[in-house]
Parts: sequence; structure tokens; C-alpha cells
Amino acid sequence: MAANGIVTLMTDFGTVDGYAAAVKGALLGVYRDATLVDVTHHISTQDVTEAAFQLATVYSVFPEGTTHVIVVDPGVGSSRRGIAVEVAGHYFVTPDNGLLTLVMANIPATRAIVLDRPEYFLANVSSTFHGRDIFGPVAGHIASGKVSFDQLGTEIPLESVVQLPWAPVTDSEGDIHAPVVSVDRFGNCRTLITRAALPVDISNIYVRVKDVTVRGVHRTYSDVPMGKTLALFGSHGGLEIAVRGGSAAQSWEIKRGDTVAVYTHEPS
Amino acid sequence: MAANGIVTLMTDFGTVDGYAAAVKGALLGVYRDATLVDVTHHISTQDVTEAAFQLATVYSVFPEGTTHVIVVDPGVGSSRRGIAVEVAGHYFVTPDNGLLTLVMANIPATRAIVLDRPEYFLANVSSTFHGRDIFGPVAGHIASGKVSFDQLGTEIPLESVVQLPWAPVTDSEGDIHAPVVSVDRFGNCRTLITRAALPVDISNIYVRVKDVTVRGVHRTYSDVPMGKTLALFGSHGGLEIAVRGGSAAQSWEIKRGDTVAVYTHEPS
Amino acid sequence: MAANGIVTLMTDFGTVDGYAAAVKGALLGVYRDATLVDVTHHISTQDVTEAAFQLATVYSVFPEGTTHVIVVDPGVGSSRRGIAVEVAGHYFVTPDNGLLTLVMANIPATRAIVLDRPEYFLANVSSTFHGRDIFGPVAGHIASGKVSFDQLGTEIPLESVVQLPWAPVTDSEGDIHAPVVSVDRFGNCRTLITRAALPVDISNIYVRVKDVTVRGVHRTYSDVPMGKTLALFGSHGGLEIAVRGGSAAQSWEIKRGDTVAVYTHEPS
Repeated sequence: MAANGIVTLMTDFGTVDGYAAAVKGALLGVYRDATLVDVTHHISTQDVTEAAFQLATVYSVFPEGTTHVIVVDPGVGSSRRGIAVEVAGHYFVTPDNGLLTLVMANIPATRAIVLDRPEYFLANVSSTFHGRDIFGPVAGHIASGKVSFDQLGTEIPLESVVQLPWAPVTDSEGDIHAPVVSVDRFGNCRTLITRAALPVDISNIYVRVKDVTVRGVHRTYSDVPMGKTLALFGSHGGLEIAVRGGSAAQSWEIKRGDTVAVYTHEPS
Repeated sequence: MAANGIVTLMTDFGTVDGYAAAVKGALLGVYRDATLVDVTHHISTQDVTEAAFQLATVYSVFPEGTTHVIVVDPGVGSSRRGIAVEVAGHYFVTPDNGLLTLVMANIPATRAIVLDRPEYFLANVSSTFHGRDIFGPVAGHIASGKVSFDQLGTEIPLESVVQLPWAPVTDSEGDIHAPVVSVDRFGNCRTLITRAALPVDISNIYVRVKDVTVRGVHRTYSDVPMGKTLALFGSHGGLEIAVRGGSAAQSWEIKRGDTVAVYTHEPS
Repeated sequence: MAANGIVTLMTDFGTVDGYAAAVKGALLGVYRDATLVDVTHHISTQDVTEAAFQLATVYSVFPEGTTHVIVVDPGVGSSRRGIAVEVAGHYFVTPDNGLLTLVMANIPATRAIVLDRPEYFLANVSSTFHGRDIFGPVAGHIASGKVSFDQLGTEIPLESVVQLPWAPVTDSEGDIHAPVVSVDRFGNCRTLITRAALPVDISNIYVRVKDVTVRGVHRTYSDVPMGKTLALFGSHGGLEIAVRGGSAAQSWEIKRGDTVAVYTHEPS
């Protein structure tokens, strides 16, 4: 897959400081004609899990050949590796700390390299800011299409890429338990429970989180009256708990990490 | 008017989640060379009125031929239409819920279409995220200049486009009453009262909101001493209440929706 | 140095309103092919000092030939000048109020002009929004490479450019005192004390701020245990106080403006 010159950025840098801009500056220094798109810079500080979720939600809507830079990097300056991985024609440039867990769980990776060639970094690499000094410039080289992926580092086994332990669990009763992995701005509470993980008939399942239990899975918010709680498949592809015209997170005091349970029979 | 490849985006998605990026990804999938500009993603949740104001404030500073995508969409998944409208050489792509009220009040629209041609959408349209699935791709087609406006949907009467009921009112005494439509970051309180709506001599009018009344309209903030309240025409073209070096909203507890009154004689 | 078409933007406009987008729209109206990069729009309202710091931290990672627009402008509408300055092959377009103090302290400027030629502004210049009406369009002309720098205004003496009084001070004992100029999102507290200002052996110096004193300067965060306070050189090149995996600002109640002292002997 040829790189298409588009580069997305996801970090926990916030937008108050110029850190994200510094990554872009270093990248444009390598590849002047990159098209830069911010995914978000508001990942909670050092929250690799949240970033892994957000990335899996959004990357595939970009055209094949897009390069994705993700810098949520609690281990910067330690011995954790920098890597680049190709999945489904997309290029990912990140610290090797689990950020690609969900991307690689959905579609197997094609190849992975460790970023061990300083000639593709900024001239002076700091020990605190690899986003600017390493990941930005390497992404610029990939996006430019002028340096081949294999040239940028040494190939590593795909199974050596760090994975987070993190997925829905089905118990012996056939019930499914999974954490809320993200609460969005509208108070929608999102899980990684896919349609395929549920019974064929979803009109009779029960979805419970905290003090609320709803029956069945609806198609969209407006299928229920205003103020009503419902379960539906969110735009990220997973089961989501929402309140029409309101906030499920606020109404039921749901936070990231709370457990969502799916029962095939009415829970007691 | 030929499209110029620039696309602006205004939504209520916030910037914590990757929703705005998803719209961009879908758009770039259609038109790789678009120049994307965020207007804001911080419209208050589902606040069509606020978005309508912000849009009217900013769009015309962009060059003619620009495409504007506005996604504030409380009715997503219901029967509300998706539309595209041409006004003054600009293209607007939005849900048909009043977002274009002020744009069309200032300058009559040239033509409008309903977005009823799925071949210009993403392959799978969700019932929760038309920004990504419909509005982004359609905007990409318009911006690319490769698909004509008329091809993208069926023409509809301009008067069928939904309008918000929302404008200054002049009463029998000649006094003007209008709501604060926006409070900006500096605490400036903005209305839609234009210069043309006021008497020729504005040095003797009185402007009142909440507990403060000021006399005359000033040219700029620095025309009054620090800490002083004044009325002036804001950069959006409408009458604005401000405090020099301070916040009118905070000083006088003014909120969006509060009434501003303009009197031609000293109010009692 | 030829302009490279990249334009960065730094303002105190926030991202809730469309002000920053208006600057971009005016700029793209002049130069359609500019590559726009937001540095930050979250400079504290009218805080020229903070913007001067952020700018110095980030600009030089962009390639030479980049144009930087900085609009933090408490004096808009007054007699303060608009200027453009070339430093190290970068172009800066700003109100003349001290924003370039640190940039010019590190590397001498090459030339400076006052923006006194309305033919390069928007047709109607407001008295409240020069970012949109003057600085954006002028930056567009510079970035386009079609108008020479000298054409855009009248040359002024470099020493006439306004400077903020603001730098580390070394006292008669050889101790250094400097304010915290920025607290970033991670609670890292940053100063302008450079490596060159310190003794050759930095393992035995003491760094004090508020109630905490640390010995020596570390290379990176992970050189100390979790929860430990340390001094290091931050990515901006200056001395920084941090807590590994935590927030120095929160732990020690440090705010911007607090004094950091460096002692070559153990303080009493």
C-alpha cells in the first residue's frame, strides 16, 4: 500500500501548550506536503487504554495509505521501544505500549518494525519528547512515500508488539461482562461488545450497568421517547448505553471502567 | 461559482472524542486534496441556535467557493432531511433544522437540494452519525469540483428550508428588543442588532441589559477607561455589550438569551 | 530565506468561538495554498508573557521559511503598531507588544517592518479584530512568496521592537533566580534557566521552589522513582521542576510567576 500523505495525530498533550504543534513542525520539516488531521489531543494523561479505544474507533474511516501517529507515552526515556506497524494498509507510529491492541485485534497486522535508525529522527533526540524528536519525523518519512517502510527500522515479530489485556468476557451462563471503555461528550457509555458476540435475537436480551437495566437493543436514539435510557450499537461498532436527549453517564453515574452485563434472560 | 477545495467544519462534537476527525477522514476518502479548517467543535450540545449564529459570523470571510459542513443534529436518525444550499457562492452541507437561518436572512440563497442519493454517501450509513456517513462525503464531492451540485441531490424550494424564529423586534415606541445570542470567551455579549436597525445618531441611544445601562455606541474597547462597560459593534457586525479589560458577562451576570433593549430616550 | 507556505497560529481566542477560523479564512482568501498549523489558541486572555514563552518554545522546530502569526492583543484599536519581523529565516506577524521578546533574545532579528500598507489588509479594517483584518492577510502575502517582505511595510529599527523585561537574574552569591514562566498540562513547571547559565557540574546544585528543594539535575523523568520530585531540562530547553508520574504544580502548589532559585551550595 502506498502512503497517501495524510497523517493523523492522537496524543495526551492537550491543546494549551504547543506540544502537538511541535510534533507537526518536526513532521513538516521532513515532509512539507503532509495533510495533517488532529484526531484528539485530549486523551486523559498517560491513559494508553483510552487512546487504544479511540484509535480503533476512528482510523479505518481514513483512506488506506494514511499514517497515524499516536503519542501517549508514560514510558518515554525508559527502554520501551518505538515502533511502526502496518495494518490493513494503514501505518501506525507509536511507542510500543499497547496502543495498537484493538487495531490489531480486529485485523491482523502485516508487518512491524522497531525504530532504531537515528538518521530518520531529529538531529538531537531529547529524553522527554519522542513525539517531536522521533515519531513525528518517522511519520513524515512514511507519509512522503520516499522512504520505504522497511528502511526505517528493523523488522520485529508481530507477536512481540505489546498488547493490553482487555476484552469482553463470556461466563459459563452465557452472560457477557465488559467494561465501559469510553464516556463521550454526550454521556454515551461505550463498550467493546460487538453485534457478533450477542445472540441472533437481541430484542429479548437485558443490558445492565449500575442501577439501570434495559431490554433489547434499539436502532437509534429517536426510537425511544426523550429522557429514556436505551442500548444501541454506537458509531464505533460496539454496544453503547445512552439516554435520548440526555446523558447516561450523568443519569446513572456511570464512569469508564464500570461493568456492563448482558443477560439472555431477565436478571434477578 | 466553482468550488475552491476549502472545507470548514462546525459541530457540537467537542475535541475529546474522534468524531470530528471521523468526518474529516470520510471527506478525505472522497477528496484527498481538501483544505480543512475547523471553525469550532464546541457548539453547546445540540444547540442549533448558537451554531446558526457562529456560522453567520464567520463564513463570509472565507473565499467564495468554500464548502461549509455544519453538524449540530438533534434529529439524527429521524426523518429530518439532509440538505446542501448555495448562498453567495458558498456551499453549506447540513441537517435541515434551521442552521442556515441567519446565513439566508442576510443574503438570499441561490439553490438548495435534498441529499437523497446514497451513491455519494459512505457505503454503510449508520443511524447515529450522519456527519461521517453523509455530510462529510457529500462535502468532499462538492469541494472536489468533480460532481456538480445538482447531481448530488434533488432540488427543493428555497422556502422549504427550515428557519428558526429569531430576530430583533422593534416595538411601538421605536425601542428595540433582542436576545444575547452569544457570550464569547472574553465575556462579550453579542446581539443581532445591526447598525441599520438603529437611528442615524447613535451617540444618544441607551442600551440596557440586566442591571446596566450605557449611553451611546463606541468605536472600540480602548475608547473607554479600563473596567468600564460599553456598547459597540462587534466583529460579527452586531451590537455587543463589553467591559474593557474585563468580562461583561461576569460583571453583570449576563447569559445567552437575556434581553438587550435599545432606547432612543433615557429609560426610566 | 524564501517562504515555504506553512503558517502557524497562536492566539488567546480559545476554540469555542470562530475567531481563529476567521483569521484563517482571511489568510486563505489571500493565499489559497497555505498549510495552516494551530500552535495554541488557549493562551490566557491577553497574556503576552505566556505567549512569548510558548512561541520561543516551539517555532524553531518548524522548517525555515515558516510564517508565524501571533495574536494576543490587549491594545487592539489603540496606537500600538502591527509589525512583521524576520528571525533565523522565520517570519513573525504580530502586534508590537513584546510577543517576540524571547525569540529575539535567543537569535538576533534580521529585519523588521511596521504594517502600514492597507492594500495588503482586508478591505474593511475593524477596530476590534486585527487578527482577521490585518495579521491574517499579511501572513498570507508573506507565505505566498509573491510579495516581498519589504513591500509589505516600512522598515523600522530592530531596537524599536517592544521587549518585555523578563529573564533569569544571577545575584552576587552566584545564585540564580527566575520565575516559573509556564505550567504545562502535566504540572511541569518551566523556567528560562538554560544549561549554559549553570555550573559545569550540575550534580551538586540545589534547585528550590516553594517548599521543595531537589539536588542535581536529572536526564529524564524515569531516572527517579514514581512520585519523586526532580529537576531536568525540559523539551523547551530550560530548567523544569517535575514529579514523575504526578504533577509538581499540584504537589507543591506552584503557580506561574513563582520564583525558582538555583544554589551552588546547600541552602540553609
